[in-house]
Amino acid sequence: MKLYSYWRSSCSWRVRIALELKGLSYEYVPVHLVKDGGEQNSESYRSLNPMRTVPMLELTEGGQVRRLSQSMAILEYLEERHASPALLPADPYLRARCRMLSEMVNSGIQPLQNLAVLQRIKGELKGDDKAWCAYWIDRGLTAFQASVQETAGTYCLGDAVSFADICLVPQLYGARRFGVDLAPYGLLTRIEAACASLPAFQAAHPDRQPDAQPA
Amino acid sequence: MKLYSYWRSSCSWRVRIALELKGLSYEYVPVHLVKDGGEQNSESYRSLNPMRTVPMLELTEGGQVRRLSQSMAILEYLEERHASPALLPADPYLRARCRMLSEMVNSGIQPLQNLAVLQRIKGELKGDDKAWCAYWIDRGLTAFQASVQETAGTYCLGDAVSFADICLVPQLYGARRFGVDLAPYGLLTRIEAACASLPAFQAAHPDRQPDAQPA
Repeated sequence: MKLYSYWRSSCSWRVRIALELKGLSYEYVPVHLVKDGGEQNSESYRSLNPMRTVPMLELTEGGQVRRLSQSMAILEYLEERHASPALLPADPYLRARCRMLSEMVNSGIQPLQNLAVLQRIKGELKGDDKAWCAYWIDRGLTAFQASVQETAGTYCLGDAVSFADICLVPQLYGARRFGVDLAPYGLLTRIEAACASLPAFQAAHPDRQPDAQPA
Repeated sequence: MKLYSYWRSSCSWRVRIALELKGLSYEYVPVHLVKDGGEQNSESYRSLNPMRTVPMLELTEGGQVRRLSQSMAILEYLEERHASPALLPADPYLRARCRMLSEMVNSGIQPLQNLAVLQRIKGELKGDDKAWCAYWIDRGLTAFQASVQETAGTYCLGDAVSFADICLVPQLYGARRFGVDLAPYGLLTRIEAACASLPAFQAAHPDRQPDAQPA
């Protein structure tokens, strides 16, 4: 498998964590989202992924090269193909809560802080892109924390790592980047610390990627 | 089951379609997203759904009232609990393509056109909310159409209705509302027309909901 990724892309990071947790090896293909207007906007990348996003997973199935984008779709695919360790609970209601928490980040926060959106907020609308992000992150994390209380143990859903943790950890990193005060989110930062002690989360961290740039 | 919904919410509409396709009856609880600053922002609704969004599905499991928000999580839950008719293909790669297409709408377009975002674009940033929406919808539909070509039959994935159609149809309705020219999207409007002939899509249409408002 090849993973098209950018070190600081939170959605790429999600997939890296899942690949590490499931012990799947892959080739890392860096896509520089910023340099020269963004490699994702190049003719050649668009022909592979018309949405111009990372991550994209490339795999061979039945002798054919297949490509998947959208991190949640990739996570579900990995879960179906490589069941162990499970990253969704077994109980249907808890599975739904896990996906709900994941989507609070995936559709509720991240799309509003992604690079293409920030470029438009700043460029077209002359807005403060950092304040814009901070607003949506704060709003989303408040809801996430209120919701996760129902199921939290060591991780978001009891004592097993799941999609929800995989979405939460990169989002908290983004929150710090955009200057959000995380003091009100004690439960979330406690879960984050538990995840940070796991080798899979460490290996998937932006700073450990081949295309990482010095601070 | 109770569905907290707003007639014109595209995410509520997705869940209504799935409930209809699976033949599940439910009580409709209207949440007026606009009146008096939005009922979703009330103390009482926030205590049920901290994210302040519709749809929210309320159900009883093992004697307990359970609540789920986030349309994709709800769709997956309905699929797991009520398998027939299947709204995801059987093949793992096609399931992933189906979820990928769905997420291109769910996280790639809809979050940028939702009411809370438009209010901020217009209110704080004094931007043109309609032009903002049209830009993201156009960009997303272009990618969706390029991607769906791989699998399209009568519907997005061959000849069976799936999550991808459920996400596409309300998004096209939104595109028209925001003035997007759909002429370049012949494949998508052909799929939309096929869906529109199905009773489940008809019953779930905004105009058929109890809280629908005259044009």
